Amino acid sequence: MRILGIDPGIATIGFGLVELAGASKPKLLDFGVIKTPKHTPVGDRLSILYDDMHTLLNQWQPDVVGMEKLFFYRMGNLINVAQARGVIMLTLAQHKIEPREFSPPQIKQALTGYGNADKADVQNAVARELELDKIPRPDDAADAIAVALTCWIYAD
Amino acid sequence: MRILGIDPGIATIGFGLVELAGASKPKLLDFGVIKTPKHTPVGDRLSILYDDMHTLLNQWQPDVVGMEKLFFYRMGNLINVAQARGVIMLTLAQHKIEPREFSPPQIKQALTGYGNADKADVQNAVARELELDKIPRPDDAADAIAVALTCWIYAD
Repeated sequence: MRILGIDPGIATIGFGLVELAGASKPKLLDFGVIKTPKHTPVGDRLSILYDDMHTLLNQWQPDVVGMEKLFFYRMGNLINVAQARGVIMLTLAQHKIEPREFSPPQIKQALTGYGNADKADVQNAVARELELDKIPRPDDAADAIAVALTCWIYAD
Repeated sequence: MRILGIDPGIATIGFGLVELAGASKPKLLDFGVIKTPKHTPVGDRLSILYDDMHTLLNQWQPDVVGMEKLFFYRMGNLINVAQARGVIMLTLAQHKIEPREFSPPQIKQALTGYGNADKADVQNAVARELELDKIPRPDDAADAIAVALTCWIYAD
């Protein structure tokens, strides 16, 4: 089973993909970021996000998708991120996928046992669960992998 | 020249289309609402909106599109409306259209000369500008026509 985690945004959208086989620990398949250029009309940025999301979903055909819920943002950024999130949800629906949504405290709780953990604790937990030598970069990708692992942890 | 006005939302999305020919007054070509079913996953509602927006844009091929800016909303609704707005902006970009955006006070100012006008004043101004016997219904469609007329008034 493949689980895709998504960290939504307008400039940088993180993704992380893990595979589960039987009772063994999840294996990291792919991770990275979709980037949209600044100083570009919002619609064009959303169009790039739409195309790149479809490329990602076609390539990996995930069975489960987890996405971070919108939490604390400055007002202007909230609208931009929510607009991008709408486009991500659209592409998932076009692939017949209804995402599971988790708040940042739920993700922190799942990975560290502590809902108020800091970023480094969560990233270290990601590396430990996946038996990685290094923490995946950039942060948005590591955050997205944490969401994918949260889907797995809460499914147990 | 055809101007499409859009009143964004998640449950009901208003649209209004006016045509300009030479120096004469704008003529109302079409208006109505796109509706998405409640109690349905958000992604599926955004998918309906995406398809219906493309149908509308293919049918009328507008030259200019105006859209209401997000203004005062309750927080939960703001995110839903912004997500839908992202999908609308995506469909416009896929048709190579960059929308003009107006705040509610700008629309009121354009139609009535008074940025704090009430809904009825704006709707009466819509009917007067277009020489209609009745105010177009529902309200979301009348609001969208007001946005289309605002594009025309501010273009003068």
